[in-house]
Amino acid sequence: MRTFLLLAGRSTRFWPLQEKTLFPVCGKTLLEHQIMRLSEAGCTDIVLVGGAHNIEEACAIVPGSKTVEQEDLTLGMRGAVLSILKAYPDDPLMIVSGNDVIEPGGYAALLATKSDGALLGYHVDQYFPGGYLCVDGNRITGIVEKPGEGNEPSDLVNIVAHVHTDPKALLEALSDVDASRDDGYEQALSKLLSSHVYDVVPYQGKWQAVKYPWHLLAVSDLLLSEIRGQNIANDVEIHPSAVITGDVVIEEGTKILPHATIVGPAYIGKRCIVANNALVRQASIGDDCIAGFCTEVKGSVLHSHVWTHMNYVGDSVIGHNVSFGAGTVTGNLRLDEEEVLCVVKGEATHTQRTKLGAIIGSHCRLGIHVSINPGITIGSHSFISTQTLVSKDIPEESFVQMKEGVLDIRANRTKATTPDDREQFRKKL
Amino acid sequence: MRTFLLLAGRSTRFWPLQEKTLFPVCGKTLLEHQIMRLSEAGCTDIVLVGGAHNIEEACAIVPGSKTVEQEDLTLGMRGAVLSILKAYPDDPLMIVSGNDVIEPGGYAALLATKSDGALLGYHVDQYFPGGYLCVDGNRITGIVEKPGEGNEPSDLVNIVAHVHTDPKALLEALSDVDASRDDGYEQALSKLLSSHVYDVVPYQGKWQAVKYPWHLLAVSDLLLSEIRGQNIANDVEIHPSAVITGDVVIEEGTKILPHATIVGPAYIGKRCIVANNALVRQASIGDDCIAGFCTEVKGSVLHSHVWTHMNYVGDSVIGHNVSFGAGTVTGNLRLDEEEVLCVVKGEATHTQRTKLGAIIGSHCRLGIHVSINPGITIGSHSFISTQTLVSKDIPEESFVQMKEGVLDIRANRTKATTPDDREQFRKKL
Amino acid sequence: MRTFLLLAGRSTRFWPLQEKTLFPVCGKTLLEHQIMRLSEAGCTDIVLVGGAHNIEEACAIVPGSKTVEQEDLTLGMRGAVLSILKAYPDDPLMIVSGNDVIEPGGYAALLATKSDGALLGYHVDQYFPGGYLCVDGNRITGIVEKPGEGNEPSDLVNIVAHVHTDPKALLEALSDVDASRDDGYEQALSKLLSSHVYDVVPYQGKWQAVKYPWHLLAVSDLLLSEIRGQNIANDVEIHPSAVITGDVVIEEGTKILPHATIVGPAYIGKRCIVANNALVRQASIGDDCIAGFCTEVKGSVLHSHVWTHMNYVGDSVIGHNVSFGAGTVTGNLRLDEEEVLCVVKGEATHTQRTKLGAIIGSHCRLGIHVSINPGITIGSHSFISTQTLVSKDIPEESFVQMKEGVLDIRANRTKATTPDDREQFRKKL
Repeated sequence: MRTFLLLAGRSTRFWPLQEKTLFPVCGKTLLEHQIMRLSEAGCTDIVLVGGAHNIEEACAIVPGSKTVEQEDLTLGMRGAVLSILKAYPDDPLMIVSGNDVIEPGGYAALLATKSDGALLGYHVDQYFPGGYLCVDGNRITGIVEKPGEGNEPSDLVNIVAHVHTDPKALLEALSDVDASRDDGYEQALSKLLSSHVYDVVPYQGKWQAVKYPWHLLAVSDLLLSEIRGQNIANDVEIHPSAVITGDVVIEEGTKILPHATIVGPAYIGKRCIVANNALVRQASIGDDCIAGFCTEVKGSVLHSHVWTHMNYVGDSVIGHNVSFGAGTVTGNLRLDEEEVLCVVKGEATHTQRTKLGAIIGSHCRLGIHVSINPGITIGSHSFISTQTLVSKDIPEESFVQMKEGVLDIRANRTKATTPDDREQFRKKL
Repeated sequence: MRTFLLLAGRSTRFWPLQEKTLFPVCGKTLLEHQIMRLSEAGCTDIVLVGGAHNIEEACAIVPGSKTVEQEDLTLGMRGAVLSILKAYPDDPLMIVSGNDVIEPGGYAALLATKSDGALLGYHVDQYFPGGYLCVDGNRITGIVEKPGEGNEPSDLVNIVAHVHTDPKALLEALSDVDASRDDGYEQALSKLLSSHVYDVVPYQGKWQAVKYPWHLLAVSDLLLSEIRGQNIANDVEIHPSAVITGDVVIEEGTKILPHATIVGPAYIGKRCIVANNALVRQASIGDDCIAGFCTEVKGSVLHSHVWTHMNYVGDSVIGHNVSFGAGTVTGNLRLDEEEVLCVVKGEATHTQRTKLGAIIGSHCRLGIHVSINPGITIGSHSFISTQTLVSKDIPEESFVQMKEGVLDIRANRTKATTPDDREQFRKKL
Repeated sequence: MRTFLLLAGRSTRFWPLQEKTLFPVCGKTLLEHQIMRLSEAGCTDIVLVGGAHNIEEACAIVPGSKTVEQEDLTLGMRGAVLSILKAYPDDPLMIVSGNDVIEPGGYAALLATKSDGALLGYHVDQYFPGGYLCVDGNRITGIVEKPGEGNEPSDLVNIVAHVHTDPKALLEALSDVDASRDDGYEQALSKLLSSHVYDVVPYQGKWQAVKYPWHLLAVSDLLLSEIRGQNIANDVEIHPSAVITGDVVIEEGTKILPHATIVGPAYIGKRCIVANNALVRQASIGDDCIAGFCTEVKGSVLHSHVWTHMNYVGDSVIGHNVSFGAGTVTGNLRLDEEEVLCVVKGEATHTQRTKLGAIIGSHCRLGIHVSINPGITIGSHSFISTQTLVSKDIPEESFVQMKEGVLDIRANRTKATTPDDREQFRKKL
């Protein structure tokens, strides 16, 4: 059985962050996490299925990977599977979405399929707006998209982790669909479910989809929850007054300074500094980051080269090479403690979170005393000036300040210094 | 001897706080403190004298209390005593103001009176704008209200802790006054002082009146000064790196996290968290409060369910169910270090304090980076938005923000979540 | 050989600070440091050469000093030397600038001169805009001012540490110059270099000129680098949880509170408090200062009686009797991480620093949440109100606030309280 990891999506709802599978969480990109999980489940032959926009980058992350490039991204998942079948027309296949993080056991159970095929059925306790499986014993007889609460045909929701043992039948089904619709794969699947025997593989483990940037926070929670014990590299310098409790990973070259506290679960990457009196809890911090003096990083995901200093970074996702001036704070709770909404592609979008801070792209600089309201996104290469109240989303490459008490957003003519430049500063510290 | 505790005042100068005797300081309401102090002094039969507005609530605090309800509050203290004498016409009585906190020894000395009556005479070193006792040996011959500095007939000031052993004579005197004036009780007292033998009971202990909200800070100091040693409940979790010095009470269920410091005298209620790197000193903190990460609570009184996070709460009184966003600060010292004035009922009022922070009512929410100038009051059920500079008093149920650099106060259409809601959040932490 | 320390400069480029040689760094004024360094080098007879504006103050710092007063300051260095020769016409002399801090070894080498005179020649690795020495073997044949990169006659730059063994020849040369120019001393020196044998004394040690206020930061670094080990007065109270690493001096009466960290090199004066969770590193802190709760003082020079509280004071110079409200921050790095410029006498001036905070005069008060942009100067006796963004330099005796989002600077009618007043507060703490 060959496994195909679908990565071709364009991550358009992931702005201001880029390619979602390449964002590091808990020390590895999502892509690496998925490959590890598939390997752990017993998948020995994994092929990456991407587009021209990301397949090279993905290969750079996992050198030597086999790949299939989907040429026409407008064909969606059907296009991806057609590209797969063109390259590998003869063998049984498992198709796995790069946008879903589940436990390895789910994949392992699928691999054991003896029938014509199998779909992973995620057990839900309450209504979920997805595709529900109609089942007859173990056999799946159909899928109903978003049936509405009370109309669910079962308590099993379709996760894109599908086994097809007969590639010819799959190709035939995919060839005979209404191509004007964007659900070609689902149409084909429907046919196969009636003509062939597809088993449901029930799954009760963890599952987290990754569609919006704040989903990285939930993915981080999921991955953090899998840390067992304290895995601290040998050369990590931990001041005797620092306190580390719970399950943590701390990578090599990192220093934990006096009176700092790390409350697990937490992941801290290489060459980081958790400075004096800082607090890190329930967070994933990438390489070369500084949780500065009197800073709290809580419930957040930091890419790499993020520098903080006397900040509160709560329930936030921060891109690569971002620095925070002293006293800058991410608001992460509305005054009315209601759900935080985010604007995605121009539309206010539910996040299902009451605690949500900021989503900040790469190469940003925030001055001192910047306040960011909950759920705000800041585009990459933006500079936010002293004492700015960021009350709405900031486009990429913006220079933002308060002018006579009003938020003033203009083009940023300056590029942030690179991590290499910053390394120079670090030596001077 | 029966003791009557006068509670009928309306606490109108106590805004934005409510019923002053029901505000908890050092773990008990003022009412409970007074009953304890009276009991300690030997008062075995204590009757609460209140109005319709507060007598029920008072009884709820001290279940099983005997009460007298003063029906016509416009009659002031004379009305209160008339109500008492109507209910208890035959017995000697001690009348004690609910607005004064003194040491139990003062009451005990009064109880030992052998004469027709006795008044507590507070020894002053410098002029005080109150009623001065004229004395002839032990006998009080009259009272002079606010004689002016240099004209004091003695160094003894009248505290409303009065014994009358002849209730009939008191009733007669109260019946024969100019009822158009609001000092009926004082008129009656004057007569009694000439017709009967009233002794002065000199008092040199502590005394703190409670009229304005900032008086709670002085009451707190008084009560804190009575703590002896470290009284820490058995189940309090104290991290080994936390430092606790001086005299403190810490109630059950509270946690003191790493690198926190508590400098006594201090009182910390039940189920509180003194979080990492927090500092509490000279403060009374009620139940279910959080002194959050890198927060200092100093010289302040916090009701219950007050949540702070990276704040400075200095010389402030904070009502029930109030939360502070990260980085919010109460200014507690003017730039010129002069006396802080407060507006009470529309008038700038002397506070006799150079250090005074904010007075905040119940159910308020303060966003991140809010700055509050010294001596500001904020009405209950108000929300203060990110980066607001609160430079004037805020009415109840306000939504406050900066609009183009100007303070903008409008009606708040939203209610703060309740402690029960917050309990849910806490579980998620 | 008699040594003359030239102090007559008016420190006009040192605004908002005053007399540069009287500013304390690492426990002593610059003047005292220089006298100590000269004494260590073997100078036994040191004469201070000042003007009416500073000679008395200098004598107060070093009681019993011999002095020469330069009457006509407009004559510059030539005037200073003429005043010296008038008072001491017969003896060999070493002239040393009060504006340069070097190592004692440099002075000692000069004192050993056997020729007609000698100048200290500072070895440079790259172009420096100063006076370069033309040399022929050991003999100096001339000086070329700012030759331009690539045109340097040697790699030796003239430091004003000059020995003249023949005072008559010096007087003659000084008398015969074009007095309409302001470089009379240099003209005379040129003549002497051709008519007499002046040796170069090469110097490769540390050298720091003091012209602009931010030069105090470099002087502080120089002096801090000379601290060896931990020199902590016997009565300093250090809480067991505090952490002190590296080379430090901590003077008597100072207290280091729980969870504070001091990272050497650092100098902390008398009667200071390094409060809970504070961090001091690479800093010179004068007497009676408070590094308050959760404050970081880094790379800075604090005069005396500077009070901080939840602040970041980075790469800043702070005058006497200055206090910071909670949450106030000095920005010390531009968003583009380029060189910080300072306005000096109306002109933007290069500082050669990417990290530079604020320069604050004496007797200032900063409210809560004040933000100061990098390189800003604030004149003495100024008050900065709550939440002000100080984005341009502030004249002396200003009251500064935001009005409708715009910086509003007006005259300050109030004087800051004095340290004596503050001492009163301290007792109340």
